[in-house]
Amino acid sequence: MMNYTSGNGNIKNWVLSEEQFHPDQLGKCESIMYLGNGYLGLRSATEEPYLQEKRNLFVNGTFNQGEENEVTELPNLADMTRFDMKIDGERFSLEFGKTKEYVRQLNLKTAELTRKIQWISPKGKEIWFQFRRFVSLHNLHLIGMKLEVESVSHPIQLTIESGINGQMTNSGSQHFLEGERRVHQKCALEMIQTTKESKINIILNAVHTLRINGEEIRNDPEMNMSRRKVWLTYNVALQPSDQFVFEKLATVYTSVDKEFSRYDKGMYDVEYQLDDSIKYIRKQASKELQELHNKGYEMLFNQHAEKWETIWNIYKLEVDSTESFDQLALRFSLYHLIAMTPAHDEKMGIGAKALSGEGYRGHSFWDTEIFILPFFTYSNQAIAKSLLTYRYLGLESAKRKAKANGYEGAMYPWEAAKPSDGEVTPEWGDIDIVTGKPTKIWPGLIEQHITADIAFAIYQYTKVTGDKDFLIAYGYEIIFETATFWASRLEWSSENGQYYINDVIGPDEYKEHVNNNAYTNYMAYFNLKLAIRFVDQLKQDDKKRFLQMDKKLDLNNHYLNWLEKAEKLYLPEPRAKDHVIPQDDTYLSLKELDLSKYKNQDSVRGIYKDYNPEQINHFQVTKQADTLLIFYLLEQTFLADDERLSQQVKSANFHFYEPRTLHDSSLSLSTHVILACDLGKVDLAYEMFTKLCETDLGPSMDTSNEGIHAASIGGMWTAAVFGFGGVRLYQEELRINPQLPTQWKQLKFVFHWRGHPLHITITKSTLRVEASTMENIRFRVFEKAFTFRESIEIPLEKGSLLSY
Amino acid sequence: MMNYTSGNGNIKNWVLSEEQFHPDQLGKCESIMYLGNGYLGLRSATEEPYLQEKRNLFVNGTFNQGEENEVTELPNLADMTRFDMKIDGERFSLEFGKTKEYVRQLNLKTAELTRKIQWISPKGKEIWFQFRRFVSLHNLHLIGMKLEVESVSHPIQLTIESGINGQMTNSGSQHFLEGERRVHQKCALEMIQTTKESKINIILNAVHTLRINGEEIRNDPEMNMSRRKVWLTYNVALQPSDQFVFEKLATVYTSVDKEFSRYDKGMYDVEYQLDDSIKYIRKQASKELQELHNKGYEMLFNQHAEKWETIWNIYKLEVDSTESFDQLALRFSLYHLIAMTPAHDEKMGIGAKALSGEGYRGHSFWDTEIFILPFFTYSNQAIAKSLLTYRYLGLESAKRKAKANGYEGAMYPWEAAKPSDGEVTPEWGDIDIVTGKPTKIWPGLIEQHITADIAFAIYQYTKVTGDKDFLIAYGYEIIFETATFWASRLEWSSENGQYYINDVIGPDEYKEHVNNNAYTNYMAYFNLKLAIRFVDQLKQDDKKRFLQMDKKLDLNNHYLNWLEKAEKLYLPEPRAKDHVIPQDDTYLSLKELDLSKYKNQDSVRGIYKDYNPEQINHFQVTKQADTLLIFYLLEQTFLADDERLSQQVKSANFHFYEPRTLHDSSLSLSTHVILACDLGKVDLAYEMFTKLCETDLGPSMDTSNEGIHAASIGGMWTAAVFGFGGVRLYQEELRINPQLPTQWKQLKFVFHWRGHPLHITITKSTLRVEASTMENIRFRVFEKAFTFRESIEIPLEKGSLLSY
Repeated sequence: MMNYTSGNGNIKNWVLSEEQFHPDQLGKCESIMYLGNGYLGLRSATEEPYLQEKRNLFVNGTFNQGEENEVTELPNLADMTRFDMKIDGERFSLEFGKTKEYVRQLNLKTAELTRKIQWISPKGKEIWFQFRRFVSLHNLHLIGMKLEVESVSHPIQLTIESGINGQMTNSGSQHFLEGERRVHQKCALEMIQTTKESKINIILNAVHTLRINGEEIRNDPEMNMSRRKVWLTYNVALQPSDQFVFEKLATVYTSVDKEFSRYDKGMYDVEYQLDDSIKYIRKQASKELQELHNKGYEMLFNQHAEKWETIWNIYKLEVDSTESFDQLALRFSLYHLIAMTPAHDEKMGIGAKALSGEGYRGHSFWDTEIFILPFFTYSNQAIAKSLLTYRYLGLESAKRKAKANGYEGAMYPWEAAKPSDGEVTPEWGDIDIVTGKPTKIWPGLIEQHITADIAFAIYQYTKVTGDKDFLIAYGYEIIFETATFWASRLEWSSENGQYYINDVIGPDEYKEHVNNNAYTNYMAYFNLKLAIRFVDQLKQDDKKRFLQMDKKLDLNNHYLNWLEKAEKLYLPEPRAKDHVIPQDDTYLSLKELDLSKYKNQDSVRGIYKDYNPEQINHFQVTKQADTLLIFYLLEQTFLADDERLSQQVKSANFHFYEPRTLHDSSLSLSTHVILACDLGKVDLAYEMFTKLCETDLGPSMDTSNEGIHAASIGGMWTAAVFGFGGVRLYQEELRINPQLPTQWKQLKFVFHWRGHPLHITITKSTLRVEASTMENIRFRVFEKAFTFRESIEIPLEKGSLLSY
Repeated sequence: MMNYTSGNGNIKNWVLSEEQFHPDQLGKCESIMYLGNGYLGLRSATEEPYLQEKRNLFVNGTFNQGEENEVTELPNLADMTRFDMKIDGERFSLEFGKTKEYVRQLNLKTAELTRKIQWISPKGKEIWFQFRRFVSLHNLHLIGMKLEVESVSHPIQLTIESGINGQMTNSGSQHFLEGERRVHQKCALEMIQTTKESKINIILNAVHTLRINGEEIRNDPEMNMSRRKVWLTYNVALQPSDQFVFEKLATVYTSVDKEFSRYDKGMYDVEYQLDDSIKYIRKQASKELQELHNKGYEMLFNQHAEKWETIWNIYKLEVDSTESFDQLALRFSLYHLIAMTPAHDEKMGIGAKALSGEGYRGHSFWDTEIFILPFFTYSNQAIAKSLLTYRYLGLESAKRKAKANGYEGAMYPWEAAKPSDGEVTPEWGDIDIVTGKPTKIWPGLIEQHITADIAFAIYQYTKVTGDKDFLIAYGYEIIFETATFWASRLEWSSENGQYYINDVIGPDEYKEHVNNNAYTNYMAYFNLKLAIRFVDQLKQDDKKRFLQMDKKLDLNNHYLNWLEKAEKLYLPEPRAKDHVIPQDDTYLSLKELDLSKYKNQDSVRGIYKDYNPEQINHFQVTKQADTLLIFYLLEQTFLADDERLSQQVKSANFHFYEPRTLHDSSLSLSTHVILACDLGKVDLAYEMFTKLCETDLGPSMDTSNEGIHAASIGGMWTAAVFGFGGVRLYQEELRINPQLPTQWKQLKFVFHWRGHPLHITITKSTLRVEASTMENIRFRVFEKAFTFRESIEIPLEKGSLLSY
């Protein structure tokens, strides 16, 4: 039973609470309360084990291909969080005995997970437990755990088994060789794990401290070892009201950690530590462990909490709403955006389930560029740059993919892992309910829009940040190579005298093997036009660099090709009668289906219980925002004045497609919130926003089992800032068209525009913008242009925007 | 809570019962009640899952090396026994609600596992469950499962998830590639697993039948698939007293099944089916599944039970004891000897934990030849021959091991898997409590007596069965090659003018790196003398064959070498003062240790909690029968009249070594029972026999977690027949010196002597032997010789044997 609005006082709207424990509903809190720092991701499984639990510990970027016929994935490291406890021989488990008090909380402010439990054992011993845990943002390698136990009225014998357990798998796939295990000084444990294919060494260490009533006790534990496991068993006698404390500090290092690894230095400006030998890392880790042991949980936790305080000061997103939930949800979004993002290393992307579960195997999709990256582009240029650099590092493998598919240029993988891995989409998915066979997963081959999505993200990044250096170092090359891909990808239709893009999947994955998916065609067009534009700019602004790039990439030749292809690329036109842009060549001629059954279901993908993919292919049913994305994205660009993107056409398509869209992807609702705001439908937008937040923060207890929904979490920020806040790159300029829903009194946030942080305060009647710069900031509010320094307050008229 | 004497009427002394369920003590029944047919081994984990469970399904012989740094082992196949059940949404688990009645039973007579449970769900629904399960002895590929459910007074909604789950590992090591999964006709499931290194294909199939009140119902289940898993979810509405039946029939085939495999035909006389293609096996399996489905659980169970009836008629071991437990224990021994033994295929051995758990990874040790094989040698010549042929198939790899270690001839692996695998002993074991490091496992290198043990087993087999063909085809070659190994292994001591065997481990594994372990030296001597003897015999009886073998093996040369080495091999003499043969060069000079603490412990290896291996090396403490085995084994041979094996020396050594022996190996007690009988200490023998049976059938609930103790199970039969029954090959002749303990009124058994089954009935006063042969049978009873046809009854005088 979740409570998302339980906190009061200084934790008001900062706390996720689980107030009743259910052993069959563990996935929810494990995922949404997971702890991470962009390097480590620790799923919040409870200390004591349960049958349906899923324990996961990931280190970002440590991809490994488990077997020859499986795709690479983030391997699930050895577990260090499980404590097997017994009270007078009885196993501590909330499935037994009686739980008098129970609350599990994730405090977003301090990123600490706690559980407070008053439990009566089957034999009647009443015990008070408090568990605490954090994954340090101060020291990326550190996991801190602390357990406090007090027996209310009986003397008890407490047994705790705590260790490092490498028997963990990714749903049965074992990524590690059996490695060395050691006990040091009867209190510390060490395990080495080595990934089987990628040969990454993982060095795990853990050390224990025991205290009774503040006094440290030296309690020689039993030392145990079995296959892939090493653990200590402590036996402690406690008198009533003895305060027992059990601390476990654990660290994780890997041979691909940036500070140890030897990868190509040429690409970076920094001097790295160049010793990635296991011996060196073990020595460092052991030294570190000793220091951490000396500091102890409280000091280490304070360092971590201070770091989070800095985070909350940097990234602000505050709402004054009649619904407490809204503020909590926006903080939840920011918390996870920080926890999931590898700010420390540009070799890494963001997984579709962040670092919270095995779902999608840690792979990066277009989710990053279209739904998550905007937060960083508008909030932290360095991190946005790092995430885009990750794509640049993958350029060679994207070129390999293009070549392997018979194309030129760079064709980005639908799913990405290590930059050099190339396409890592698995081949087979769920069972087909009609044939009984697994279904073929096509996106790795034919969901091609991601290549243009990445081009779009680079465009957005450079326009918002003004970072030209990135373009020069990485961006131009990606834009040119992706344009070249599209130019080679187009198919000439002699009948129509235009270029087609046949046999693709658009964002609506319920339609496989369609021709001329509108989104794909429009985005490919944008990509081509962007390359043309960049060449024009380069020629004009920096002739020398143009010549260099021309030499390397044969730009002059490609340029002519891009021009010809862009001009003749078929862009589906809005239907004359109703302005609807056909999602693809056949969509509008498909049968309609009554979707009310599925649209009202608690869980997604209910339609698969009734129809198989082949059948769904033949209905006017859309999984997620598809054609509508054209409007949201392209109006940010130099194509914004295209008539096909007019407000009228946008409205017509929203009204046509939304009812046909099941929102069966967590990528769907944020776009709809933003467009609903653009169309003045603020009530509808708010309703959708609530649903969007409920993707992970809803009452349904099983939707996050495989992990949180990183794109919807990114989408919560965009829905608030781009939707209700109305902030948008529009025709290459800044636009702010705020529209608060009835429930919101005030919305405050900060974003960066061309290097300057702008502090925004929106109420129903005013928009206030503050900037600490001496430069003039220009922007538009509902078509009116404003220029200011330091700060400006603009009155908002009611109905500033027409409702269509 | 186990009850080993619960059955009454026609199941009296046939049934193991668990009368109270404990979720933390699952290993006991999983192991001792495991089901097997020599091909399949299915650990008896419950249908509903529990946290501490260990699910195992093995197919004999399907060894695979999981990782480059792990040893090959029997892989744990996909699970097909787990049913996840819900009653009105509440998970069925005996950890919840109230269990009104509970009994789990293994009926040894029919080899059926059953559970009867009356359970009240937390919401108060009272349900009656009966679970049944067998692993067919009629069709080696078949597992039958049947569940009956009845709701006592409420209508209920029952949900059952049943599937094939390939997420299983061997304690974290995954042996299989992710394989194809299919649903057929909405009721049948199929999964292919392929071992990663040995590339063995496993084809798993399962089909479901549902009935309410005898009527089959077609209930379309939900079809689900995830990584390495495919399963169906059935939802059934039941009215009070509806009889619901859920049958699941599962089959397992592999590409190395004898009927499919292509291995060297030359060695065998039979024509095998030679198509091991996956396509062919899948087709066969699917056809078979359809036929099984048509037959149903009851008919298939009856076929299986009939086969077991035949077993119980062939192998008899009946005791009339004041302790019911004794009869149950001896049936338990026979049951497991059949369940564990691959009678169907000579490519396979017997694992130290049979097919009941992951312990010792399915490897074969000397346990087979010295402790298990005697049962087959005396009971079923064909199976004994098959087990020895397995060693012949391993001769090449034994020669490889000799060569790799710088020796000649054949040096058998301490642990064996597939015949061609050679040595598969792992390199590292438990943690050293002093250094915190894993301990090195030495036996694979220096526990060398197994080579002589195999020679002994061949000798025993040929003497008891009279099977000369085996000698000609396989036996001679093994004896000659092993003798050659020993000849090359000996080390000349110029000081002493004798050959030593330095730096070995004897049966007492608490002593590592000893010189001249008496057992090893005596057995090596026997091995050399046996080769010499066989050459002498061959030359005399079959000159032609001798010349052939001489050509192949250079016998004449080796012969001279064997003679010289045997003559000068150092055989530790009994000490003059007390006739004690030193276990090794230093044992008698080591410190003595008070062992009472460890000898009275419930669990074994308690000494490791106080001392590390290095320390134990320096005490007069012995893990298991070591020097004493010399007497038990060699008095069966042509060396029996050696004075060093006299009754006086035997007695002196028993009295010296037994108090220094911790019986920390399950190989220890059976030898002690036999020797205690030989020495007339029948009460002591009976006390030890009870302890021996309690190795698996004791009150301690955790001793069988890793699997049953195959050698102690074989030892139960030898303790009864060789110990109390007094049957022995002695000086190459048959001897029967019976001595029943006080508690036993009568002992009946059958064994085969030179091809003739002899039916033995022993009471306190008479020995009756019956044989259905026209030949004269000769044997000795307490030194007196008898010859008979058909039957003979011999009165037994009290105190026939002197007590020493």
